[in-house]
Amino acid sequence: MTFYSELSPSPRTIMTPGPVEVDPRVLRAMSYPILGQFDPEFTSLMNDAMEMIRAVFRTDNQWAFPVDGTSRSGIEAVLVSLIEPGDKVLIPIFGRFGYLLQEIAERCGAEVTVLEKTWGQVFDPEEVISAIHREKPDLVAIVHGETSTGRIQPLEEIGKACRELDILIVVDAVATIGGVPVETDDWCLDAVIGGTQKCLSIPSGMAPITYNERAERKVLRRKRVEKGIRQAGDGIQTGGLDGFSPVRSNYFDLSQLQDYWSPRRLNHHTEMTSMLYALREGLRIVLAEGLDARFARHRLQEAALIAGLTKMGLSLYGDASCKLPVVNCIDIPPGVDGESVRSMLLDSFGIEIASSFGPLKGKIWRIGTMGYSCSRKNVLHLLGALEAVLVRHGVRVPQGLGVQAALDVYDQVPKIT
Amino acid sequence: MTFYSELSPSPRTIMTPGPVEVDPRVLRAMSYPILGQFDPEFTSLMNDAMEMIRAVFRTDNQWAFPVDGTSRSGIEAVLVSLIEPGDKVLIPIFGRFGYLLQEIAERCGAEVTVLEKTWGQVFDPEEVISAIHREKPDLVAIVHGETSTGRIQPLEEIGKACRELDILIVVDAVATIGGVPVETDDWCLDAVIGGTQKCLSIPSGMAPITYNERAERKVLRRKRVEKGIRQAGDGIQTGGLDGFSPVRSNYFDLSQLQDYWSPRRLNHHTEMTSMLYALREGLRIVLAEGLDARFARHRLQEAALIAGLTKMGLSLYGDASCKLPVVNCIDIPPGVDGESVRSMLLDSFGIEIASSFGPLKGKIWRIGTMGYSCSRKNVLHLLGALEAVLVRHGVRVPQGLGVQAALDVYDQVPKIT
Repeated sequence: MTFYSELSPSPRTIMTPGPVEVDPRVLRAMSYPILGQFDPEFTSLMNDAMEMIRAVFRTDNQWAFPVDGTSRSGIEAVLVSLIEPGDKVLIPIFGRFGYLLQEIAERCGAEVTVLEKTWGQVFDPEEVISAIHREKPDLVAIVHGETSTGRIQPLEEIGKACRELDILIVVDAVATIGGVPVETDDWCLDAVIGGTQKCLSIPSGMAPITYNERAERKVLRRKRVEKGIRQAGDGIQTGGLDGFSPVRSNYFDLSQLQDYWSPRRLNHHTEMTSMLYALREGLRIVLAEGLDARFARHRLQEAALIAGLTKMGLSLYGDASCKLPVVNCIDIPPGVDGESVRSMLLDSFGIEIASSFGPLKGKIWRIGTMGYSCSRKNVLHLLGALEAVLVRHGVRVPQGLGVQAALDVYDQVPKIT
Repeated sequence: MTFYSELSPSPRTIMTPGPVEVDPRVLRAMSYPILGQFDPEFTSLMNDAMEMIRAVFRTDNQWAFPVDGTSRSGIEAVLVSLIEPGDKVLIPIFGRFGYLLQEIAERCGAEVTVLEKTWGQVFDPEEVISAIHREKPDLVAIVHGETSTGRIQPLEEIGKACRELDILIVVDAVATIGGVPVETDDWCLDAVIGGTQKCLSIPSGMAPITYNERAERKVLRRKRVEKGIRQAGDGIQTGGLDGFSPVRSNYFDLSQLQDYWSPRRLNHHTEMTSMLYALREGLRIVLAEGLDARFARHRLQEAALIAGLTKMGLSLYGDASCKLPVVNCIDIPPGVDGESVRSMLLDSFGIEIASSFGPLKGKIWRIGTMGYSCSRKNVLHLLGALEAVLVRHGVRVPQGLGVQAALDVYDQVPKIT
């Protein structure tokens, strides 16, 4: 038998657009002994998590719970539950994760129409709204914060237009939840998916979601109860009646998940106990900081980082008017091997930054300022390290000035660290 | 804002058929700071996990990795990737989780034929083999260990019959992996799904799976690469060519998952870093104990528990010849409120045992002897506590004899604790 070494991960400063560093209190929460999934003490923690998700998503929705999987599991659960084969779905795309929405919707059997925007920009809401009037889709799916390009899409007008036309709107807020305002109710969003491993600073593994009664109505008419746990009085059981098709997935069927998360606790999967501890603790920390204070901290670290990078002579990628505050995209200077810079940052300084995908691969670096990683200490460490590494790669950088520029920004707001 | 209390779960002795107690070394592993998903140090841990899954599943398959979700996510990933709509699927059912296979296969669009066995029994392999000859399915899906009834299905002859007829066989070994032999290669099983939260004693959250080249061939002809990350030379991109339909799920598409787990590391989801730490550490502990020693420990604790329960005058549910060694089902004595007994065990003794589902609800208790929970200390604690609680519920139990009977069993094998 091969002998495997003891786990001993090296310390890292993680400045990617996710996963980012996890608050030590969340790490500690995962080390607590587990409870059984139907232990009243555990179901009480599940209820806490639901309440806290509502607060973070700023919604009064009844349904607010995690899907047990990574962020895209939450997206797929919402889409596969809300899209019946043949439904018309409109997807405005301005980066990689828009294509993911398209991909999932197509696999759900939707007739998908896309609007595509040049990467680095977002849509004028009026463009989307006129497409909605033209296409009359059953559902609109759209990304809020695109980590692939570092852009943020204004959603309020689009959400309200969908509500007026009685069209469902689903929002991927994986990158924004906990770092940038996501106003589920005020913006009239019917279903919103968040991510744990970005601004919430919880390890990847759960996807908190919320959806309202409009979405629930669509889910419930496709309801089906597992035969192995059916009891007299379960009512609708077979799905597909009255022309409504059952949800194509069991794991992602929101009608079953909401029964599991309801007081009835109808058995579905075995809840991820340790991840639920992490989720509850991470949300508790977010709410203790306060959402508005948290957003302000993210804006400050962004300002300091951008000041430093600019002073170093680096140029920012994309349209500044729609920059996502928690992701900072830099054009890789001409002649520089972006991957070599990333490797040296990791190997010598213990800092991880990200490359990018598709058309931007090799062209930009992406630096995250998210959650627990979004700190003064990390921004300053990164600026100093990046300068040193760029110099070692032959780039002419004014030495020492990047860190000084960031310190100047911090001098104006001494209390946020 | 509501104030939420600090996490502080009560200590529990968890004797259910999962989730069960987690080895403290695994809990500790989850409390380590995370690494980025593409950090070479992290991908090296991913590779370790793959090797260890191969060892635990006793296979030389290239593909052996976790699906990021609870156990049923692994089942759905395998079925949705291997079943094309219209495929004929044969499912022999002898408990709740057989119905789950049926449910998932139907949602995948399969034409499902089931064989049903009275709960408490399993199939004579010849019954299944003759059904296979009769039905000529594209795929057979079957449960190895049924926790709902506490039975284990012999698979070797069925696996070999499928291989001879070139039919794929998929096995749900969620309850057995790590506690009872699962011989993936020797039994000619094409795809096997394990569970973490049972005999492996890792928290729920990942589903280790393995599949061979026969299964891979079927997956690859349905391959499709996400548009947002496509590059020149990716070859097949759209799926659905040549009459093969693309996999209906993105999250569960094994062709994408295996690209992510290959040296190419093609981006898919964000790997669950902390759960991967837990998986690697849990498998490391299993392999350090040794599979055969681990199986022997499970058999011994079963023998001691059964000796004690029998001495107490309790009767065991189901056909003894196919008893699943890691789940012990007891008929609830006439006139006893099973839920009241369970509550008192939990509230006064901190012990959790399970009820059951569907036709067995209210009729049996199920006691797990799995993984870290499968210990001499736990078996003796449970026997003493159950006796006391039954006496408080008016059941005439010979006092003190159950624990003594278990001690007699342990006297014969003093070294296993």
